[in-house]
Amino acid sequence: MPNPTIQTLSISTQAVRQFVDITDSVQSVVTRSGVRDGMCFLFLPHTTAALTLNENWDPEVPSDILHTLGTRTAPADPAHQHREGNSPAHVISSLIGAHLFLLVDSGKLLLGSWQGVFLVECDGPRTRRVVVKILEDQASGESAR
Amino acid sequence: MPNPTIQTLSISTQAVRQFVDITDSVQSVVTRSGVRDGMCFLFLPHTTAALTLNENWDPEVPSDILHTLGTRTAPADPAHQHREGNSPAHVISSLIGAHLFLLVDSGKLLLGSWQGVFLVECDGPRTRRVVVKILEDQASGESAR
Amino acid sequence: MPNPTIQTLSISTQAVRQFVDITDSVQSVVTRSGVRDGMCFLFLPHTTAALTLNENWDPEVPSDILHTLGTRTAPADPAHQHREGNSPAHVISSLIGAHLFLLVDSGKLLLGSWQGVFLVECDGPRTRRVVVKILEDQASGESAR
Repeated sequence: MPNPTIQTLSISTQAVRQFVDITDSVQSVVTRSGVRDGMCFLFLPHTTAALTLNENWDPEVPSDILHTLGTRTAPADPAHQHREGNSPAHVISSLIGAHLFLLVDSGKLLLGSWQGVFLVECDGPRTRRVVVKILEDQASGESAR
Repeated sequence: MPNPTIQTLSISTQAVRQFVDITDSVQSVVTRSGVRDGMCFLFLPHTTAALTLNENWDPEVPSDILHTLGTRTAPADPAHQHREGNSPAHVISSLIGAHLFLLVDSGKLLLGSWQGVFLVECDGPRTRRVVVKILEDQASGESAR
Repeated sequence: MPNPTIQTLSISTQAVRQFVDITDSVQSVVTRSGVRDGMCFLFLPHTTAALTLNENWDPEVPSDILHTLGTRTAPADPAHQHREGNSPAHVISSLIGAHLFLLVDSGKLLLGSWQGVFLVECDGPRTRRVVVKILEDQASGESAR
């Protein structure tokens, strides 16, 4: 029997490195769940991509972040031994992280004014899965009935 | 109707970059909630700051971390295009992360001996909000009644 | 009265810096709990180590990550003031993070094909504790009874 609290988003990335704004897709899962107050947990079953929150207004913010990651934080390095050649993507996955939680308040993701949810592709293009689990508050759920 | 499980802390930062120890403020929210066993989720609705755990004993630990972030991990870079000029703050926000969870055990935040909870200001001074959501364990809550 | 939802793993690390694969140990805690569907929260009460997800197939992935962290992201720096000399370990702990959540689906940790759970030792060898908290889904728990 499938676990009804888990849903999976499929995201096709278009470039080697890319921030993909998934805010609306995640909000759609929350809306379909009918949950008013609770938590939304995002889990990425991949090791060369990441999930993060950041500004989704100016596209130069994601591009500046990718520039810094690629030149300063985790650049390509001839000393890397992993044969697939994507060790910087693995570094970024661990630094940014492959999991994220969000609060759900009155049926909406609670986010700052400029804040969006991003899949950070570091070794694309590929099809990535994002596992979404929504938990409804027990107390508020009961009091609402 | 406001969601009773969500509270917001308001934190005034004093410098461009600064670790602000918010451990006591978060513990106060936990204490006021009356929750004995559960989880405490912290969410930062900002994209140029972060939340982290680290040593809150020697103040040279936070200052060394800020030094490394500013000189090695995410330094200023003339190639950045974002006009506000705060791209390094956005990088650090994604690397450290804008969300954090803590365990609540017998009414106290479960933390290591040297561990504190910090708001990491990267583009201050500003007033920042930290959203705190506390969830009580269902089983332990029931057994305690 | 001890909190029955919290267990602590004790992990002995063998090197100054090391990725220790703790996937099987965490799965054992999940299995013993009897929880079928839920969440598994991992919390590290230490400030010079971290918890992360990454590839646990090719051992050159962790070694490449440690190489990049030590040479680019957070190298030793004579400007560091913290007397213990382990400031890079504190930087890495905040960047990678000392907490992690996993989804539990049908009694198993939900992980990608190549994905494992690692304790990242940055200032060993030491004995580290990993606190594990498992929460069962309320709805699925009820419907299963």
